[in-house]
Amino acid sequence: MTHSHPLSILSIEETNLARDVVKAAHPNVVIDFREIFLQEPPKVQLQEFLALEHAGRLSPTTPRPPRLALCQYDVIGVDRIPQFHESVIDVVSQSRVKHIVVGKEHHASLTLSEFDVLVDQCMKSPLFQQALSEFDLPEGFEVVIEPWPYGGLDHTDENRRFFQGLCFAQDKRSGNEDSNFYSFPLPIIPVMDAHTQEIIRVDRPATGGKGDGLLEKTFKRDIIGHCKPSEYVPELLPEGTRQDLKPLNVVQPDGPSFRVTNESLVEWQKWRFRVAFNPREGAHPRCLTVPYADPRPPYHRKQAFDFGDGGGGNMANNLSLGCDCLGVIKYFDAIITQPDGTAQTLPNAICLHEQDNGIAWKHSNWRTGRAVVTRNRELVVQFIITLANYEYIFAYKFDQSGGITVESRATGILNVVNIDAGKVSEYGNVVSGGVLAQNHQHIFNIRIDPAIDGPNNSVVVEESHPVPMNAVTNPNGNFYEVTKQTVERASWIDAAPHLNRTIKMINPHIKNPISGNPVGYKFIPLATQTLLADPASVQARRAQFAQHHVWVTKYRDGELYAGGRYTLQSQNEVEGVSDAVLRGDSVVDTDVVVWNSFGITHNPRVEDWPVMPVEIFQLMIRPADFFGANPSLDVPSNKNVSSRLADSECCRKSHI
Amino acid sequence: MTHSHPLSILSIEETNLARDVVKAAHPNVVIDFREIFLQEPPKVQLQEFLALEHAGRLSPTTPRPPRLALCQYDVIGVDRIPQFHESVIDVVSQSRVKHIVVGKEHHASLTLSEFDVLVDQCMKSPLFQQALSEFDLPEGFEVVIEPWPYGGLDHTDENRRFFQGLCFAQDKRSGNEDSNFYSFPLPIIPVMDAHTQEIIRVDRPATGGKGDGLLEKTFKRDIIGHCKPSEYVPELLPEGTRQDLKPLNVVQPDGPSFRVTNESLVEWQKWRFRVAFNPREGAHPRCLTVPYADPRPPYHRKQAFDFGDGGGGNMANNLSLGCDCLGVIKYFDAIITQPDGTAQTLPNAICLHEQDNGIAWKHSNWRTGRAVVTRNRELVVQFIITLANYEYIFAYKFDQSGGITVESRATGILNVVNIDAGKVSEYGNVVSGGVLAQNHQHIFNIRIDPAIDGPNNSVVVEESHPVPMNAVTNPNGNFYEVTKQTVERASWIDAAPHLNRTIKMINPHIKNPISGNPVGYKFIPLATQTLLADPASVQARRAQFAQHHVWVTKYRDGELYAGGRYTLQSQNEVEGVSDAVLRGDSVVDTDVVVWNSFGITHNPRVEDWPVMPVEIFQLMIRPADFFGANPSLDVPSNKNVSSRLADSECCRKSHI
Repeated sequence: MTHSHPLSILSIEETNLARDVVKAAHPNVVIDFREIFLQEPPKVQLQEFLALEHAGRLSPTTPRPPRLALCQYDVIGVDRIPQFHESVIDVVSQSRVKHIVVGKEHHASLTLSEFDVLVDQCMKSPLFQQALSEFDLPEGFEVVIEPWPYGGLDHTDENRRFFQGLCFAQDKRSGNEDSNFYSFPLPIIPVMDAHTQEIIRVDRPATGGKGDGLLEKTFKRDIIGHCKPSEYVPELLPEGTRQDLKPLNVVQPDGPSFRVTNESLVEWQKWRFRVAFNPREGAHPRCLTVPYADPRPPYHRKQAFDFGDGGGGNMANNLSLGCDCLGVIKYFDAIITQPDGTAQTLPNAICLHEQDNGIAWKHSNWRTGRAVVTRNRELVVQFIITLANYEYIFAYKFDQSGGITVESRATGILNVVNIDAGKVSEYGNVVSGGVLAQNHQHIFNIRIDPAIDGPNNSVVVEESHPVPMNAVTNPNGNFYEVTKQTVERASWIDAAPHLNRTIKMINPHIKNPISGNPVGYKFIPLATQTLLADPASVQARRAQFAQHHVWVTKYRDGELYAGGRYTLQSQNEVEGVSDAVLRGDSVVDTDVVVWNSFGITHNPRVEDWPVMPVEIFQLMIRPADFFGANPSLDVPSNKNVSSRLADSECCRKSHI
Repeated sequence: MTHSHPLSILSIEETNLARDVVKAAHPNVVIDFREIFLQEPPKVQLQEFLALEHAGRLSPTTPRPPRLALCQYDVIGVDRIPQFHESVIDVVSQSRVKHIVVGKEHHASLTLSEFDVLVDQCMKSPLFQQALSEFDLPEGFEVVIEPWPYGGLDHTDENRRFFQGLCFAQDKRSGNEDSNFYSFPLPIIPVMDAHTQEIIRVDRPATGGKGDGLLEKTFKRDIIGHCKPSEYVPELLPEGTRQDLKPLNVVQPDGPSFRVTNESLVEWQKWRFRVAFNPREGAHPRCLTVPYADPRPPYHRKQAFDFGDGGGGNMANNLSLGCDCLGVIKYFDAIITQPDGTAQTLPNAICLHEQDNGIAWKHSNWRTGRAVVTRNRELVVQFIITLANYEYIFAYKFDQSGGITVESRATGILNVVNIDAGKVSEYGNVVSGGVLAQNHQHIFNIRIDPAIDGPNNSVVVEESHPVPMNAVTNPNGNFYEVTKQTVERASWIDAAPHLNRTIKMINPHIKNPISGNPVGYKFIPLATQTLLADPASVQARRAQFAQHHVWVTKYRDGELYAGGRYTLQSQNEVEGVSDAVLRGDSVVDTDVVVWNSFGITHNPRVEDWPVMPVEIFQLMIRPADFFGANPSLDVPSNKNVSSRLADSECCRKSHI
């Protein structure tokens, strides 16, 4: 029999098998599946396996860690109130090894089918139709409802399952279904109780500007008369697309330099890693919250947890050759779960390709004129998610110098609301007639579970400090001191660029033979603004992870999500990284986990409309005395023979 | 007659003409030229001309601003003591319009011919030969002297002109002149008086480690017996180069999208700018200091001003097709000055090319499945300088969304010193046997002279501040306040990422018609560590600009260099940005200049040896309500037809 690697994602067969075991365990009820995906084996068993694998001692009879499927689902009983369960299924023995009723304290992540219900129910709702009838939409415009999670529960809310709809009007006259409806926002927000499927309320947010009160409403029947079309699909652009951009092709005549075996093991330039995917995190271990800063109710409920609420992986784009990446591309399919538990292939969810990123290293000997230059070839593992209006492009970039860059690009369409004609607002920027783009933040978290030359590592905070001039240690005042402090207990650490604060993950037992320092990898945490919401607010309480830059914890099986396991409608961060830190575990010379939060305070520009140019964040993780020299020293410095000189046609003289 | 554009660099003819005028003004003396380059016309006259040019109203009879050549040179009289002069020559009227004797207070920038003198004089010096004779170099090794500026003058130094030599031994047995001598450092530093050309002293730096005193010397005859070869030229690598990297070609079948007219005007994707070059700054308005932190004398004198001391432009590499950039390349030659004042062409000093930088913007409509994706095409203006062991790669990257990224890459070989066998040091890291790479900083400064829709601009500091939860303005605690403060008087501003501090350069008179905000460009200053040296140290006094992140001043003709006009051997920053700020000018609605300092505290890793992988810094300057929408909205979203799928050869199944 062929074994899957313990870190390979569940196959379609394994997923469906898990579904069957769950269904058999719950006879005579309706089961609404949310997610079925690999639960990695207990770390201890995984480490034993990996040690054998790395030693080249695997054989067909090597004991394998269990293949476990984590199944999250609602059980819908006779009262029609769904009950949230989790089961862990061993797909080899086809048995349930764990079962818990999560219960009402937490909410299962949302599914797209719930979104469909919201739209249907709005259309049928007299309350919603009544709200709509208070506006006159121009001829040819139709309402569009954009389903959203409800944000954190208010103290006034009953603990039920809610969804909200952000409403827009779409100009249907062109017949183009991709006409941009976001430029016509309607100030009504229907709220549905997902259990009863009833529209229980239609909120009416304010549309005022500076100086208007938080609750002041301006009623207008002609609600989008002051809004303008803002198209982005090329066929609807009034001026069409520019004609002076010539093709730039990435050609790899001998194919790529990578090798992919068994659809998950990637080997490239001395790197060797597995590509995996799950419906919650996609291809990267991440968390993300996007809180909006408009204080006018109910806008405080605009706070998405893009990975936890509905699954970042579930929202992954089907990537397209020649659009999302250039050159020679390897695509990986992913597997997600349908509401009935059946596995579904998400084609081309991840792409793998090489790219050139300028010069990798160069030195010219000025005595001889000899220059040695190498190019910086990178291997990119990319996936892209769409969350309603917004998109994120996530990439790991591996380089030949042992570095890993974790890149996030934010793009897509700003989430916007209606503002009265001629007004401006302190809550955001007017980016188009009648369209207010509200100030907001995007705060990401990346989980790093290091194993630097072995499972037991420590974390060292390295800083550079000025030293006052003194006769003994600093006679000329040029000396600065580099301090190194090992993190003893689970804790958070903020970025401190004025101290050049650097986080080093080291193996305290293995010294670099040249420098004598412990082998390690390091990063300088980006000093981006942390969460701005008041610490006592629901926005802040449910996103503790966003309030500090670095968190160091001791590994625990299943503790994977900075913002907590269950984020949908959460009021607090539960079982997130802030709880993990509270345990106060010793984190010295053990299986340590490092979490890094960073982000952007996004006060929109007019240039971000109607689709926003990418905003790029890069976390650079680099070896620090891990190798015995620059690992890219042996990269060939051959001249690229296909490059050529620009000819006289583009570079001419003229007399003016 | 054909006119040069007022911002075009001096031609060879103009340069030689200026030389002749200077020589004629100084009969019967020897003149040692340092630099001859364009002095931009007085700003007032330049602005008048540019206004006509932008209005399309230039004609052959339009009055032109003067073409001025700034000439810096030493006049060597009978006493053989050079006297530093500056003349400004009008090359049209062939007359001297300004002449000053700079005198002894400042030093002219160094020339490579002075470096040659240092090496020659060392070899002839009994003092130096005596120092060398105290060591036994292995058979086949020869001494190499790396000339360096002397750093800032000590209080013990007479105010003369000095150079120092860092010494290494090169293994000549391979016959390869590019064998890496930096891996065999010798602890002797000869010092030359450049006026008398005498080696006046040979300093003996300490070679000890942790716990050894600052002045403790360990004498060893076998001074490099514990050092190891560390080669980087491919033919000397013991294992050769890797064989598994396949070619990646950038092919532009229809040529580049840019157009270059009259060798300096570049037009590309709605951008229009001129490429210029001068021997001091190269192609970018910059300043840079690199102070070393080893307190052991005389290492406090290792502090280079890479642009001011010898001219960043003078050190520019001759760039090479297929090595320094890929695709279709346009090269620009530069002009530098020989010691006799004759212009010399520096071929291929700047390169211009396009590159792909991933996705520019994307949105998928999840209702229809329609994705619109555009690629992020960039235009790169790059030049590279070599400063003895080190190189910097500087690039402007223009994008289609109106952004300018100013990129700096640091690479090359670390500057290293000898350390006793088996020792480690708190002053740096041992990166190879017997080789200590000292801790140091690189602090850059970029000058931005904005003209946002007109010559008179203001600078606004925008910050995002938390607001305590309160019933009136922030009932749910999610609100944060965006504050905007106009900079009133010339001053410095530090980066403050915890406030999302953003520097906006605006035109207070022109409002964006959509948002109502003044049109502007913005950047978030990188919160990198400022200079660590004690403020009272010579290192700090001569590099005031490196002590704060942003400086705002009122424009003044000739005030171009953050670290001061004359940096070689300076003891203080004179006429630098710190002096400009002291004037306390009003900077509201005027010709304002913004200077941004940023850098790296470089505590070396073993991976930085023997040639360092690039360390990349990016300053991103972005439009902020300058345009009426995303300027790249009309970029075509065509599929790139040359991309292809990775085939089964690289992606196969195997059973393990």
